[in-house]
Amino acid sequence: MEIRIGLVGAGWMGKTHIKAFINAFINFGPKYGKPVFETVSDVSAEAAKNVCKQLGFSKWTTDWKEVVQDERVHIVDIATPNAFHYEVAKAALENGKHVYCEKPLSLSAEQSIELAKMAKQKGVVNYVGYNNVMNPANAYIKDLVQSGKLGQIIGFFGIYSQDSLLDPNLPITWRHINKYSGSGALGDLGSHILSVSQFILGNIESVIALPKTVIKQRPVSPGSLELADVENDDLITILAKYENGAVGTILASRVAPGRKNYLTYEIQGTEGTVYYSLERMNEVKVYFTSDNSADRGFRTVFLGPEHKGYSAFYPAAGIAIGYNDMKVLEAHELLSAVSKGTPYICDFEFGAKIDQTVSAILESAAKQNWINVRNKGGVTI
Amino acid sequence: MEIRIGLVGAGWMGKTHIKAFINAFINFGPKYGKPVFETVSDVSAEAAKNVCKQLGFSKWTTDWKEVVQDERVHIVDIATPNAFHYEVAKAALENGKHVYCEKPLSLSAEQSIELAKMAKQKGVVNYVGYNNVMNPANAYIKDLVQSGKLGQIIGFFGIYSQDSLLDPNLPITWRHINKYSGSGALGDLGSHILSVSQFILGNIESVIALPKTVIKQRPVSPGSLELADVENDDLITILAKYENGAVGTILASRVAPGRKNYLTYEIQGTEGTVYYSLERMNEVKVYFTSDNSADRGFRTVFLGPEHKGYSAFYPAAGIAIGYNDMKVLEAHELLSAVSKGTPYICDFEFGAKIDQTVSAILESAAKQNWINVRNKGGVTI
Amino acid sequence: MEIRIGLVGAGWMGKTHIKAFINAFINFGPKYGKPVFETVSDVSAEAAKNVCKQLGFSKWTTDWKEVVQDERVHIVDIATPNAFHYEVAKAALENGKHVYCEKPLSLSAEQSIELAKMAKQKGVVNYVGYNNVMNPANAYIKDLVQSGKLGQIIGFFGIYSQDSLLDPNLPITWRHINKYSGSGALGDLGSHILSVSQFILGNIESVIALPKTVIKQRPVSPGSLELADVENDDLITILAKYENGAVGTILASRVAPGRKNYLTYEIQGTEGTVYYSLERMNEVKVYFTSDNSADRGFRTVFLGPEHKGYSAFYPAAGIAIGYNDMKVLEAHELLSAVSKGTPYICDFEFGAKIDQTVSAILESAAKQNWINVRNKGGVTI
Amino acid sequence: MEIRIGLVGAGWMGKTHIKAFINAFINFGPKYGKPVFETVSDVSAEAAKNVCKQLGFSKWTTDWKEVVQDERVHIVDIATPNAFHYEVAKAALENGKHVYCEKPLSLSAEQSIELAKMAKQKGVVNYVGYNNVMNPANAYIKDLVQSGKLGQIIGFFGIYSQDSLLDPNLPITWRHINKYSGSGALGDLGSHILSVSQFILGNIESVIALPKTVIKQRPVSPGSLELADVENDDLITILAKYENGAVGTILASRVAPGRKNYLTYEIQGTEGTVYYSLERMNEVKVYFTSDNSADRGFRTVFLGPEHKGYSAFYPAAGIAIGYNDMKVLEAHELLSAVSKGTPYICDFEFGAKIDQTVSAILESAAKQNWINVRNKGGVTI
Ligand SMILES: NC(=O)C1=CN([C@@H]2O[C@H](COP(=O)(O)OP(=O)(O)OC[C@H]3O[C@@H](n4cnc5c(N)ncnc54)[C@H](O)[C@@H]3O)[C@@H](O)[C@H]2O)C=CC1
Ligand SMILES: NC(=O)C1=CN([C@@H]2O[C@H](COP(=O)(O)OP(=O)(O)OC[C@H]3O[C@@H](n4cnc5c(N)ncnc54)[C@H](O)[C@@H]3O)[C@@H](O)[C@H]2O)C=CC1
Ligand SMILES: NC(=O)C1=CN([C@@H]2O[C@H](COP(=O)(O)OP(=O)(O)OC[C@H]3O[C@@H](n4cnc5c(N)ncnc54)[C@H](O)[C@@H]3O)[C@@H](O)[C@H]2O)C=CC1
Ligand SMILES: NC(=O)C1=CN([C@@H]2O[C@H](COP(=O)(O)OP(=O)(O)OC[C@H]3O[C@@H](n4cnc5c(N)ncnc54)[C@H](O)[C@@H]3O)[C@@H](O)[C@H]2O)C=CC1
Repeated sequence: MEIRIGLVGAGWMGKTHIKAFINAFINFGPKYGKPVFETVSDVSAEAAKNVCKQLGFSKWTTDWKEVVQDERVHIVDIATPNAFHYEVAKAALENGKHVYCEKPLSLSAEQSIELAKMAKQKGVVNYVGYNNVMNPANAYIKDLVQSGKLGQIIGFFGIYSQDSLLDPNLPITWRHINKYSGSGALGDLGSHILSVSQFILGNIESVIALPKTVIKQRPVSPGSLELADVENDDLITILAKYENGAVGTILASRVAPGRKNYLTYEIQGTEGTVYYSLERMNEVKVYFTSDNSADRGFRTVFLGPEHKGYSAFYPAAGIAIGYNDMKVLEAHELLSAVSKGTPYICDFEFGAKIDQTVSAILESAAKQNWINVRNKGGVTI
Repeated sequence: MEIRIGLVGAGWMGKTHIKAFINAFINFGPKYGKPVFETVSDVSAEAAKNVCKQLGFSKWTTDWKEVVQDERVHIVDIATPNAFHYEVAKAALENGKHVYCEKPLSLSAEQSIELAKMAKQKGVVNYVGYNNVMNPANAYIKDLVQSGKLGQIIGFFGIYSQDSLLDPNLPITWRHINKYSGSGALGDLGSHILSVSQFILGNIESVIALPKTVIKQRPVSPGSLELADVENDDLITILAKYENGAVGTILASRVAPGRKNYLTYEIQGTEGTVYYSLERMNEVKVYFTSDNSADRGFRTVFLGPEHKGYSAFYPAAGIAIGYNDMKVLEAHELLSAVSKGTPYICDFEFGAKIDQTVSAILESAAKQNWINVRNKGGVTI
Repeated sequence: MEIRIGLVGAGWMGKTHIKAFINAFINFGPKYGKPVFETVSDVSAEAAKNVCKQLGFSKWTTDWKEVVQDERVHIVDIATPNAFHYEVAKAALENGKHVYCEKPLSLSAEQSIELAKMAKQKGVVNYVGYNNVMNPANAYIKDLVQSGKLGQIIGFFGIYSQDSLLDPNLPITWRHINKYSGSGALGDLGSHILSVSQFILGNIESVIALPKTVIKQRPVSPGSLELADVENDDLITILAKYENGAVGTILASRVAPGRKNYLTYEIQGTEGTVYYSLERMNEVKVYFTSDNSADRGFRTVFLGPEHKGYSAFYPAAGIAIGYNDMKVLEAHELLSAVSKGTPYICDFEFGAKIDQTVSAILESAAKQNWINVRNKGGVTI
Repeated sequence: MEIRIGLVGAGWMGKTHIKAFINAFINFGPKYGKPVFETVSDVSAEAAKNVCKQLGFSKWTTDWKEVVQDERVHIVDIATPNAFHYEVAKAALENGKHVYCEKPLSLSAEQSIELAKMAKQKGVVNYVGYNNVMNPANAYIKDLVQSGKLGQIIGFFGIYSQDSLLDPNLPITWRHINKYSGSGALGDLGSHILSVSQFILGNIESVIALPKTVIKQRPVSPGSLELADVENDDLITILAKYENGAVGTILASRVAPGRKNYLTYEIQGTEGTVYYSLERMNEVKVYFTSDNSADRGFRTVFLGPEHKGYSAFYPAAGIAIGYNDMKVLEAHELLSAVSKGTPYICDFEFGAKIDQTVSAILESAAKQNWINVRNKGGVTI
């Protein structure tokens, strides 16, 4: 059997997806049908053509509609900038396709809820690319939390900081304009930390946020003296109350000097604490109050075969997986779901719930007040 | 010359102060008068008597009034529980004494402002024991910030977490009762992180906070089945806007598993980031955007003679100072101020400004709203 | 164009090689011919059959001779246990094939020198799988050393420790029997640390070693009460003099509790120090004496596009590569060499020089004396 | 009761000793007699006079003989450069004094054995200042080893590196001339790592060493163009076999860029590993194979009241002690021994055994051969 894939958006993430499908198959196959690359589309003909050749697609196009309408395509894979996710996903669903969409699902809670409902109704596989939940580290941490090993959960303290947009000479892009991006560091980076937070602790009840735009204007193009306004948050700090009674702080920044891929979080319970950083994605620090007090301290646990997902890559502990391997595990979830109907986490509803939190955060920042998350943009189910 | 000291409160901190005076003199002396220990008072006669004998006081008493009225005493040193600071400090000032008071200065912004004004008017040395600002690491960090080496400051992210009160079997103490403590983790631990924050970045403009009481009742005494209510925050999370435009998050907790003395903070500027943790108080991590990009990363700088205060202890870098050494540097500030009129940071006004922030934080938690710090409890100067 | 590969040994490393070829092509292609998988052989028919199906070989066999004689095969890829490398490599060379052989090249310096000479004479591409030299971190470190940024090199301090064979209940395997393995931790793990050492610092002049067999006997099979002798080193400590005047210590252990993949090394020069650990393979710690002394400390440099090889995977710094990615870069070296004649490091001569060092180390351990490395087992060129 | 102390050598260590006595008394007193500072001598009158005044001695002199002959003196405290330890200690013993001598005990195993025997015969307290064994961390580690929690001990891997003498412009000192120092980095730094090694694991059986002098000549005085030869090791690497069957590597360097006070060691047993670094002297890393494998990793244990010696300083874990506090605990050992006859570790015999190891190491370096330690320089007891 073949699982035929059509790709919309042949940039970094588009290529990463296709490589992930290939590696999922060579690591897990032949458990399921072989992924076959049918059509790739990009507004840039060159991008589409190159990916077609390099990654073995059958054909390419500059019109994404050809992809969603292609009868041969089983999965429509969306890796365009955020603003196009909604339209493409909707059309793909209308054509009865399985849909694999990069995060965030759309630009608003409303759109995302609409897509989630539509996907449920169509009965297709619907997946949002929040790959951080796929790290075996996160599965391990979720298990620590849910098994009660950390006691009752008190707090979640999460950060996603980078310094990718610190340089004020970098020109304005779609990421700085709300109609294309929805928000700044919040949607781009904060949504990732929300994804692991909501994956592990469940929904957030209410939020209040304080955003800051550090670089208020940027050149319209590299080297230009003409400046355009940055419309959204370079960094944002958030307080959160969880439905389960925990409290939390969340920080997202694209202008944090020295922080490269600093998605970190600490979860404290009454019987232990766990800490993780994506910059050292092969280890988890965990503390148990039940350890003998003279010998008690944070343990640095290296990932190993005991942690879900790891043994797809290596037979022994401490051999580093990489960032792309999270995408491989994501592709594996998707191929399993399509070929065998197995359940998975990051469906459109999960994505919509993150967008509800994002929406409440933006409102709280605007109103300088606590805002409830539930039913932002509509009822999810 | 002699500098004669009278101590009120002969507990852990009281003893620590006296040891600090002794060490200040043997490290810095004979730059100034020799500290001489005149009278020690404690409500517990045994405590007073023991300290008198062990640390070489001339006499002891159970009545603190004798200390503040003692003509021979130059400095009244207050190390009682928080609730008594105000009364003792006020009486000491009325008697024209120099006053060295443990943190927090009092239970409210009002009281602290009153004391600050009174001290200024009396023209005596007035000092609050926020020792963390004395670590050479903090002096170094302040210098990084003020010299502009980190560029324009964007954010401050501070934590003071401990797990000292995590065990629910620990009985209720004055720390859990507001009339004795003013607040919970906030006043006890949070005030320390506020002290370094305000020392380095200046005043906070407004705050919003979310507190949580994790252990809602505690035994009235060890092993008792009778329970009493915990009145204040076991942990508190705070968003802050600084007067200089920076934003921040602050977290204080006395129930954070595995965190022992986890006073940490990160300051981000447009040209660099600096990070510090009291658990590793001999090192500072600093990142400069100006470093050559291939070789750029957080530097782990060990304290050394270049950092203000360090060379009082050691002639070469990387030889660990300890927590008590911050108190030694504090005692040195005080002895210098008394004998030579040298300026110092942690005066009552500085202490009062921290209490203003604490007061605004408590109000923001109660009202669930942003609260301005300025003029909380009155005008400072 | 196609580059057709025949694989001998379909175990963990054999599969890893094939996946690496696939990923090299999808990351770097179409810079060179597409790797095509012709024949796979294994003494286990099941292993051969499974790999044939999963990874897309044209056919499988249990007779490795069919692979080396197959006219369609361009590259013979050898991933059998060590004892078979020599025979298979020799036959492949005799048939004029390019040869990609896992480390160590053979069981002795003599055999390896013979293969190195034969490969040179045949003019084929000849490659030994010392993948650790391919980490962008190692390329960066080599550059630090060779550019003189660390001054004159003083010392190399290397370790490769694991606890994989710590459990005394694990049964005896070929790794414990010298006729199959040549040596214990030394050849298996120590050879890797020698590979980076010799890659960066050049050849070792003389050595003295102290080995230790910690678990002297093991069950002949899992759970068996019958025990067989372990013939070789569980751990070995070594002093080394380098030809360039540096000194060094080297430690290899397969019984080091808590060490999972602990290949670490520190290189000290008169103007700086650099440190690396495979357990955190995305970062390098480097210290420059030229930094301003108040701000000086080890820098934690995350790998990024400035470091050779990294940008094949990611466009920005701090996104983790994994262990397999070193094999991808290795496969890329090989495919480039075959299709474009580009030069590469780990040829058979490089492998033979490592085996010369191993041979001298074994002799020094037996004789308890310093032993010269040069010309062990014969002259290389 | 008073314990009267006479000091010979009023440099850094001399002052540190006196401060340590003062702090031992204020921390532990009044468990024993009060230390009283009788006479201080130094070849520099100014040094002696200053210390006399600053630290409260009764009198000073430039003639050390006055100290050892002073009837009022109970303890002779020797903190001169190494070359004078022997003569002063011998004279002090002849006068029936308790002797507290800085490390190393003397310049040779012979002299040290002579002193050890004489001290035993005189029945006085005799103490060598190997303060690193006093860190509560080392007591904890010794307990881990001796209780069998780490299983059978396999290896010890120790380092003491600094970069204090890296700068080639620093002039020649007594440390570079063997008749004053005995050896280079070995005696100065290596002896410290030997002290903890022998304290925890017992005696070393045999050694082989490779020394290196990196900076072969130094200015005779700051800025001078005249150069003098450095006679001893800037760095030395050592292999060791312990009497208990363990193996080890030891490294000492005074020219290791970035290493400030890098006394580190790792001890591996069949059931666990422990690691310590003086640069982070408040924490110990420990790994137990018995931990549940999914949650297993090195634990970072902060020192606390459970660890012997710590509670003299603080009532709760994670509050940093400093380097000087090891000297305080050392002074406490000494005062206890003098006033109450309590046993202690670092007697002259212990010091002599370290000097035997140093002697064997030097011989092994000269002869390039393994050398037995036992009976180097004579039989100890
Ligand atoms: N899961 C994760 O960790 C990450 C997710 N992403 C997400 O992936 C998406 C793409 O990001 P990148 O690949 O980094 O951007 P990119 O800019 O490298 O690629 C986007 C591509 O889409 C093409 N494109 C734009 N409009 C299109 C349209 N209407 N139809 C077809 N193609 C169109 C562009 O020409 C470009 O080639 C974003 O939604 C982003 O949020 C990106 C990076 C990491
Ligand atoms: N700067 C810092 O890092 C720290 C500051 N502190 C501060 O030091 C103060 C004392 O704390 P601890 O020494 O830990 O408490 P403690 O409980 O060990 O000592 C307090 C002593 O005061 C005595 N006392 C109570 N009421 C008194 C009165 N009216 N007159 C005279 N004596 C009285 C008690 O009998 C007790 O001996 C507090 O304000 C606390 O916030 C405490 C620990 C650390
Ligand atoms: N570069 C690196 O970091 C690593 C290198 N290796 C090297 O890879 C080689 C293989 O190791 P693994 O894959 O771990 O072992 P493995 O035991 O997983 O696989 C070896 C395979 O070779 C097969 N085989 C044995 N004799 C054969 C013969 N005469 N002809 C054909 N097939 C034969 C076995 O049936 C088995 O399937 C070794 O030389 C090892 O040193 C292994 C792991 C890591
Ligand atoms: N335990 C440890 O970690 C350390 C131990 N030491 C040891 O302490 C000793 C002293 O070292 P430092 O204080 O660093 O040296 P230093 O040079 O600061 O002090 C030595 C003092 O001895 C005086 N002196 C020299 N010859 C004398 C004599 N014949 N009689 C009286 N005074 C004499 C000198 O004038 C000088 O004031 C050395 O043996 C050294 O190995 C030093 C530093 C650390």
